[in-house]
Amino acid sequence: MSCIFTRKSVRNFTQERVNDEILIELVRAGMAAPSARNLQPWAFIIVTERKVLDLLAERLPYAKMLFEAPAAIIVCGDLSKAGDSPEGYWVQDCSAATQNILLAAEALGLGAVWTGVYPRNDRVAIVKEVLRLPESVTPLNVIPVGYPRGEHHPKDKFNETNIHWQGW
Amino acid sequence: MSCIFTRKSVRNFTQERVNDEILIELVRAGMAAPSARNLQPWAFIIVTERKVLDLLAERLPYAKMLFEAPAAIIVCGDLSKAGDSPEGYWVQDCSAATQNILLAAEALGLGAVWTGVYPRNDRVAIVKEVLRLPESVTPLNVIPVGYPRGEHHPKDKFNETNIHWQGW
Repeated sequence: MSCIFTRKSVRNFTQERVNDEILIELVRAGMAAPSARNLQPWAFIIVTERKVLDLLAERLPYAKMLFEAPAAIIVCGDLSKAGDSPEGYWVQDCSAATQNILLAAEALGLGAVWTGVYPRNDRVAIVKEVLRLPESVTPLNVIPVGYPRGEHHPKDKFNETNIHWQGW
Repeated sequence: MSCIFTRKSVRNFTQERVNDEILIELVRAGMAAPSARNLQPWAFIIVTERKVLDLLAERLPYAKMLFEAPAAIIVCGDLSKAGDSPEGYWVQDCSAATQNILLAAEALGLGAVWTGVYPRNDRVAIVKEVLRLPESVTPLNVIPVGYPRGEHHPKDKFNETNIHWQGW
């Protein structure tokens, strides 16, 4: 529970590298998410090469922290695995996987932030080009990952008016 | 981390009631999720009345476990809070909130399962009618919640071929 409540968006990172094994552990957490009819319609790109991180940072409007982050995970929908599921389900499945990755990062002392790509077509096209994604693979987001630099505090977003009992 | 890997879909429940405070705690975990531009475009319906649970069970094709579950949480997108965000973002935000709720249930010894509603229009219409949701509120899913009955085991879904380094 504490990880859920202490997780926050981290946009500033130290220069320290993140081990490949730890990055795989984050993606392993992603794959533990549920998916509609257990189709697991996802793929994960891990980027640690400075050249690729910089290219994404240059071209994506809200991912400038990639100039500083030592790694990024790109969560993608793989439509070739989605069967005849409605369009919306891969987005839900990959979002659940993303939340697992963010919580795992918090649990392991890392910082991360969800930067949105899909459904903005311009951003989808940039990520597909830079990462050479096949036609059937759509990037949902780009998650910069690293060790946090500076202080980051979770927001308390509890709002009782969001809760309705038995119906509206 | 252990909650992420031990979470599983639970579809069988004991008759034991879940306290209102615990249900609020689950929803509190949901509200701790990140959202695009921090718009928090969500609302949560908590159902504990047998009559309402049975009505949802009768009318929804994949939520028959509600006949047995003592409670349900319905995660909704509240489009009146979504500003000019693209359609897809509230789905991502509410999916992250849902994953937090599922993990919180696991952490608290409860069982839960994500049953899909949106984007299937027939299911959306049923839930909106039964719960009297306003026009701007769209149910993403229905999550039956209760104390698990019988054995449930998490699936190991790790698949190394889903991981790509530096690009496809």
